[in-house]
Amino acid sequence: MFVLGIDPGLSRCGYGCVEGRPGGPRAVAIGVLRTDAAAPLHLRLAELQAELRSLLAELQPAVVAVERVFFQVNVRTAMSVGQASGLAMAEAAAAGCDVVQYSPNEVKQAVAGDGAADKGQVQRMVQALLGMAAPPHPADAADAAALALCHLAHAPVRVRVAAAEVRR
Amino acid sequence: MFVLGIDPGLSRCGYGCVEGRPGGPRAVAIGVLRTDAAAPLHLRLAELQAELRSLLAELQPAVVAVERVFFQVNVRTAMSVGQASGLAMAEAAAAGCDVVQYSPNEVKQAVAGDGAADKGQVQRMVQALLGMAAPPHPADAADAAALALCHLAHAPVRVRVAAAEVRR
Repeated sequence: MFVLGIDPGLSRCGYGCVEGRPGGPRAVAIGVLRTDAAAPLHLRLAELQAELRSLLAELQPAVVAVERVFFQVNVRTAMSVGQASGLAMAEAAAAGCDVVQYSPNEVKQAVAGDGAADKGQVQRMVQALLGMAAPPHPADAADAAALALCHLAHAPVRVRVAAAEVRR
Repeated sequence: MFVLGIDPGLSRCGYGCVEGRPGGPRAVAIGVLRTDAAAPLHLRLAELQAELRSLLAELQPAVVAVERVFFQVNVRTAMSVGQASGLAMAEAAAAGCDVVQYSPNEVKQAVAGDGAADKGQVQRMVQALLGMAAPPHPADAADAAALALCHLAHAPVRVRVAAAEVRR
């Protein structure tokens, strides 16, 4: 099963596609989508939307995990992050994927065992968990891969909870 | 020339399509797109995206005027408004429309002559400017029509500024 993590952003939108396997997770594709900061906003949004659609068509993930954005944090870029997250969720749903959201703290807790881990720790843990030769760069790409790993860590619990609800 | 105003929102996304004519503006289509508040967020975003795409295909506006959102206002719904505005701008750009943004104050100033006009005043002025039998309801639909009217009021100035820049 492929899980695609998305760290939404307009200048840099991180993505990290991870395959969940019995022997441990495997990196499928990790990187960032960029749009030109000098271009008009609506053209940047349309470009990001088209690139997200291509990525989903290419990777065909079963689940897309998007970072839950909080507007208290970083008000200057909050609007464009919100806009990018909306595009990512709409495109993922239109592509027939399950869509889940995790907060930054949940992701850090899942991959680094510490909800207050810094970006370097997350990068090193993603490297270790995926057996990569070097930490993924930039941090947005590592954060996206961490989202996918967080979902794989949570998935067995989600399945057990759903099964318990069915038995009730 | 058709101008489509969009007042972005997830529960209610207002739209107002107005034709600019020498004899005065004419209402083409005014209403709201709604999504089910009980449905999961990603499905609501995908539904709104599909409805915006249909609306753009049907009306074929030359210009789409989207309300500029500020996150200081109404933090509770700020995220979904940002997400909806991102979808509206991306779809409009993908459909080949010009996209412009106006702040709520600019819109109120343009249609009611007062940047602090209340919703009722905006509804009555939209009714008067478009020669409608009754004020448009709900307020989101009136706000969207007011965005389109605001653009028509600003458009001659924008053309003169562009012409002056060409002559320089």
